[in-house]
Amino acid sequence: MINSHPVINRWLTNRDRINHSLCVGIDPDMDKLPDTFPKTIDGMEQFLIHVIESTQEDCISYKPNMAFFEAMGIEGLRLLERLCKRIPDAIPIIMDGKRGDIGNTSKMQAKFIFDYFGADASTLHPYMGSDSLRPFFEYKDKMHFVLGLTSNPGSQDFEKKNMADGQPLYHTVIKQCIEWNQDYGNIGMVVGATHDELANVREIAEQLPFLIPGVGAQGGTYSHASDKGKNLDGLVLINASRAVLYPSKGISHTQAIHSIIKS
Amino acid sequence: MINSHPVINRWLTNRDRINHSLCVGIDPDMDKLPDTFPKTIDGMEQFLIHVIESTQEDCISYKPNMAFFEAMGIEGLRLLERLCKRIPDAIPIIMDGKRGDIGNTSKMQAKFIFDYFGADASTLHPYMGSDSLRPFFEYKDKMHFVLGLTSNPGSQDFEKKNMADGQPLYHTVIKQCIEWNQDYGNIGMVVGATHDELANVREIAEQLPFLIPGVGAQGGTYSHASDKGKNLDGLVLINASRAVLYPSKGISHTQAIHSIIKS
Repeated sequence: MINSHPVINRWLTNRDRINHSLCVGIDPDMDKLPDTFPKTIDGMEQFLIHVIESTQEDCISYKPNMAFFEAMGIEGLRLLERLCKRIPDAIPIIMDGKRGDIGNTSKMQAKFIFDYFGADASTLHPYMGSDSLRPFFEYKDKMHFVLGLTSNPGSQDFEKKNMADGQPLYHTVIKQCIEWNQDYGNIGMVVGATHDELANVREIAEQLPFLIPGVGAQGGTYSHASDKGKNLDGLVLINASRAVLYPSKGISHTQAIHSIIKS
Repeated sequence: MINSHPVINRWLTNRDRINHSLCVGIDPDMDKLPDTFPKTIDGMEQFLIHVIESTQEDCISYKPNMAFFEAMGIEGLRLLERLCKRIPDAIPIIMDGKRGDIGNTSKMQAKFIFDYFGADASTLHPYMGSDSLRPFFEYKDKMHFVLGLTSNPGSQDFEKKNMADGQPLYHTVIKQCIEWNQDYGNIGMVVGATHDELANVREIAEQLPFLIPGVGAQGGTYSHASDKGKNLDGLVLINASRAVLYPSKGISHTQAIHSIIKS
C-alpha cells in the first residue's frame, strides 16, 4: 500500500466492507426538509439522525457542509456538534469548510475543525499558499483535501486558466500539493466529477486521494468518478449530498445510495 | 465621487471625521489576553468591549476575524454575536471569514455573515470563480473584498506565479473583479501592505476599494499603504490587528493606533 495513514486506513476498511466508495454529504437545508419533520432545529436534528442511522452501514465517510449549519445560526453549529458525536468512530468525518488564511489564522480555523468538532479531515482553499495550509497539514493524523479542480461552472474563471508553462492553474496547485505531500503524507485533492479532465488529473497525481463532489444532483456519474478517480490503493471518495439526503418521494436514503453507485 | 455605496459612504464619513483610514482587526487570542482580564470567554468579552469602547472614535471600521472566535468554540461565536451588537452602527463591520464555495453553499455562508451577524462586508477566496462569489455580490448593500495579493509569504506559491499572458495570477483575479464590479459596484480587493507591488496593483484597479492588512505586527507601514492604496475617492482601509489589540505594556490602544498611523 502506497499511502499509510490512520484515516486512509479507515476509508479503505469501510470500502472493503461495503464494496463502494460513496461519501454522504450532509447539507441540511430547511427548505428541503421532508414534510414529516417540523421545520425547526429539532426537526432538522431528527431528520439528520435518521439519515445517519439509515446510511452509516452504507457509506465510507460523512462530509458535513459547515455553511449549511452556519446558515441556521449558532444553534445550527450546536446541532453540528451534537451530530459529530452521533457519527460512529469507524466513519471518518470530512468537515467541509473550505478554509485557509494567513498562518496564525489558519491555526485557529484548524483548532475549530479538529480540536472542537473532532473532525478527521478538512477541505482547503489553496490561493494563499504554503503558510496558509501548513497549520492544517501539521495535524498529521488528519487528512486535508485542497481544492484542485472544482465541479462548478466558475472553475473556468481561474482554475482552468493557463499559466506560463501552458498548463492550467489547477495543475500548478496539484503539482505543489504532491510536493508538500512528500513532507506530510496527509494531503488529498478535491476534483470535480463533472470534468473530463479527471483522468488527466489522476495521471499527474497517481498517489493523492481524491475527494470527488458533483455526483448525483450536480450531474457527474459514479462510475466515471470511480474509474478515473481511484489512486494506486484503489482509494477514492465520491461524494453525494442532495441526491442522498433529499431523494424523490418513496425512495429511501439507502436506495438513493444504491441508485447513485449504479450511475 | 466614483463609488457610491452605503458602506463606502460610512467609511468616507468616518475618515473625514478622524483624518485617517485605520481599520481595527479583532483577533481575540486567549494567549495574548492582558493579565488584568481572566482567561475565560467572559474575561475576553470584557477585554474586547474595552477595546471597542476605547477605539470606536478612532477607527473607520472593525474587522473581526471569525477564526479567532471559532477557536474558542461555539461560545466564542456567541461572543462574536454579542460584540457585533456592541459596535456602533456608524462603524461598518468587515466580517473576515475568507469564504467561497459552490453557489448554493456560498449562499449559506453569506446568510451567516450578513443575515445572522448583520455584518457590512465580507472577505472572499477567488479560487472557485464567478458562481462562488456572486451569492455574496448579490448582497448589494454590503461590500465584498476578494483576495488579490495577500501579505503572507505563501503569496508566492500561486498568487505571484505568472499566467500565460506573462502577468501574475493576482492580476487575472483583479482584472476579473474589475469586470464583475461593473455589474455590482460593491467589490473591493484584499492587497497586502508588505508588497512593493501595491502601487502597480492600484494602477490596474483605480476604482476598487482596497482592504490592506499586514500593517503593524506583519511589518508594513501605514504611510506606504495609504499613499499607494487609496482609490480615486481617497478611500483605503488599512487594517492593524495585533498591534492595536496587544500593544507593549503601558501603551493604550489609542496610542497604538496613533503610533501606527505615523509609521
